Amino acid sequence: MTRIQFDEMKATIKQAFLNAGMPEDKAEVCARIHTESSRDGVYSHGLNRVERFVEYIGKGWVDVNAVPTLEINLGAMEVYNGNLGPGITNAIFAMNRATEIAAQNGLGLVSLNNTTHWMRGGTYGWQAAEKGFIGICWTNTESCMPAWGAKSCGIGNNPFIMAVPREEGHIVLDMAMSQYSYGKLQVTRLRNEKLPFDGGFDQDGNLTDEPGIIEETRRILPMGYWKGSGFAILLDIISALLSGGLTTAGIDNSGKGSCGSCCQVFIAVNPLKINTQEFIDQALSETIEQLKSSVPAKENGEIFYPGEQSLKTRHQNMELGIPVDDGIWAIVKELARLKH
Amino acid sequence: MTRIQFDEMKATIKQAFLNAGMPEDKAEVCARIHTESSRDGVYSHGLNRVERFVEYIGKGWVDVNAVPTLEINLGAMEVYNGNLGPGITNAIFAMNRATEIAAQNGLGLVSLNNTTHWMRGGTYGWQAAEKGFIGICWTNTESCMPAWGAKSCGIGNNPFIMAVPREEGHIVLDMAMSQYSYGKLQVTRLRNEKLPFDGGFDQDGNLTDEPGIIEETRRILPMGYWKGSGFAILLDIISALLSGGLTTAGIDNSGKGSCGSCCQVFIAVNPLKINTQEFIDQALSETIEQLKSSVPAKENGEIFYPGEQSLKTRHQNMELGIPVDDGIWAIVKELARLKH
Repeated sequence: MTRIQFDEMKATIKQAFLNAGMPEDKAEVCARIHTESSRDGVYSHGLNRVERFVEYIGKGWVDVNAVPTLEINLGAMEVYNGNLGPGITNAIFAMNRATEIAAQNGLGLVSLNNTTHWMRGGTYGWQAAEKGFIGICWTNTESCMPAWGAKSCGIGNNPFIMAVPREEGHIVLDMAMSQYSYGKLQVTRLRNEKLPFDGGFDQDGNLTDEPGIIEETRRILPMGYWKGSGFAILLDIISALLSGGLTTAGIDNSGKGSCGSCCQVFIAVNPLKINTQEFIDQALSETIEQLKSSVPAKENGEIFYPGEQSLKTRHQNMELGIPVDDGIWAIVKELARLKH
Repeated sequence: MTRIQFDEMKATIKQAFLNAGMPEDKAEVCARIHTESSRDGVYSHGLNRVERFVEYIGKGWVDVNAVPTLEINLGAMEVYNGNLGPGITNAIFAMNRATEIAAQNGLGLVSLNNTTHWMRGGTYGWQAAEKGFIGICWTNTESCMPAWGAKSCGIGNNPFIMAVPREEGHIVLDMAMSQYSYGKLQVTRLRNEKLPFDGGFDQDGNLTDEPGIIEETRRILPMGYWKGSGFAILLDIISALLSGGLTTAGIDNSGKGSCGSCCQVFIAVNPLKINTQEFIDQALSETIEQLKSSVPAKENGEIFYPGEQSLKTRHQNMELGIPVDDGIWAIVKELARLKH
């Protein structure tokens, strides 16, 4: 396995984005975020997603020059049009704005309509936490999962993120509504392995742990069966109604690729408007301690808090370099070489 | 199966609460909510929970005279001390206050610390939707579920609710973090049936669909395995930090029963501050239509939106009467007869 240092990967991705026509400031930010996603182990939305993002720019599905414009200001809540700008810079703007509002009022909510794929949703949870804010955010997507009881795709796999700042390591939940991502199915199939648990349905409608079969039927399983299905539906509708933008059904008709013209919600809370730092530290440490002192299910097993393993992967990849698929790395280097 | 008319059930429960020392106005509201929960099919937190609630009053774990008192006012966000008042009246107050703030600003968030069991979480989603608001709320609880990777209980089964108002029937998600409730395990065991899917672990740490075995090990399964576990942890911490109250670990030590001195968060958004009614109607109808027109997994199968089946049960139970367990109904009638 080849490992690439953070700075080299970031510089290469940045050049690829510059070549695709992105302004320097946006290329810098987007390259950093893609590299950070790979650094944290979310390869599918890091380096591995660069080629597709460049394609989207080429097709005009992402406007590299666009920035969010304010549509509605309600004080603690602001609604922006993402103007089909890069999903990453739009989302960073929105979460940052939510924290600015929260810094003043305790609570801030910023919604985006007409934005594009934000890549790794966890990015914006870590962003809020890094600034000392509790962050909650989600996006809607095009239809890519069957609702519970259906076999055709009718709902989005809308990720939901919650983050709490903590000095020893932020507590960050970043979960899609499917039990497994297509990336996980692919990786597992290529290793000739089965999924740890059933992850979708076969042709006959039976649950299966065979990743290849699920890739064929496209019937991925919502997490918790009917629960993830219902959660996806509510996240979709609420993101659309909080931003005045497109629902999943609307995105399906937008013809602008995955998450083209999607909606996102960013909520930030300043915990220091409510608690002392001492109280916060105590609440976090007693919670982590209770988790860690649970009796492990397996002998010598360890119980992790959400975000803990991302942080471990981050430290490892910063030390050893970020692992890359050689074919994908060659493609991105080619995109960085080409002059348009 | 005995069926009891709504008004008779409510009057009986109300008398039981009056006998337990509740003031008339609170007994009226609590009796209505318990009856509505049974009416909507959530029997575990309706009639079936009356006896335990009365016990909690007797033990001094619920202060029947307490009302929430304002601790922090941040404009769009308010923090209240629930003063261990009845969980239902506290939560109704909080969601109502969130909608009042949202009516003005578009967005309102009210948190409660030091409150008590709110019974059926969906109640407050329906409440917001009934007033025309989008509602999001959750509570933390005592430890009652093992975290992912653990076999001892260390996290709460913190329910999460999202609701969207809709003329033809509100869209309401009301989900606990466990795949199945203990109520569902019990009912399934009494019928000598298995669960539809694995719902927990046996003594050897293997997943099982045998409800009786899970009741014994107390190792219920978080929905979506590690996902529901992580979600429960974040819901707990954020509710505590948004209200300055006890975490799950703190509730475990409070000695005031299930959810004694717990924390709750209530968010309301006025969708008409962002959209026209026409836009809202269109977004909702295209979403429901897309769901309903999915290819069903089973021949002649039907796909339901979240909240649809509650509404059907409601209509059926209003027409035919609310089904009761004869033993439980006898106990509640006895509580209503007794004079303290």
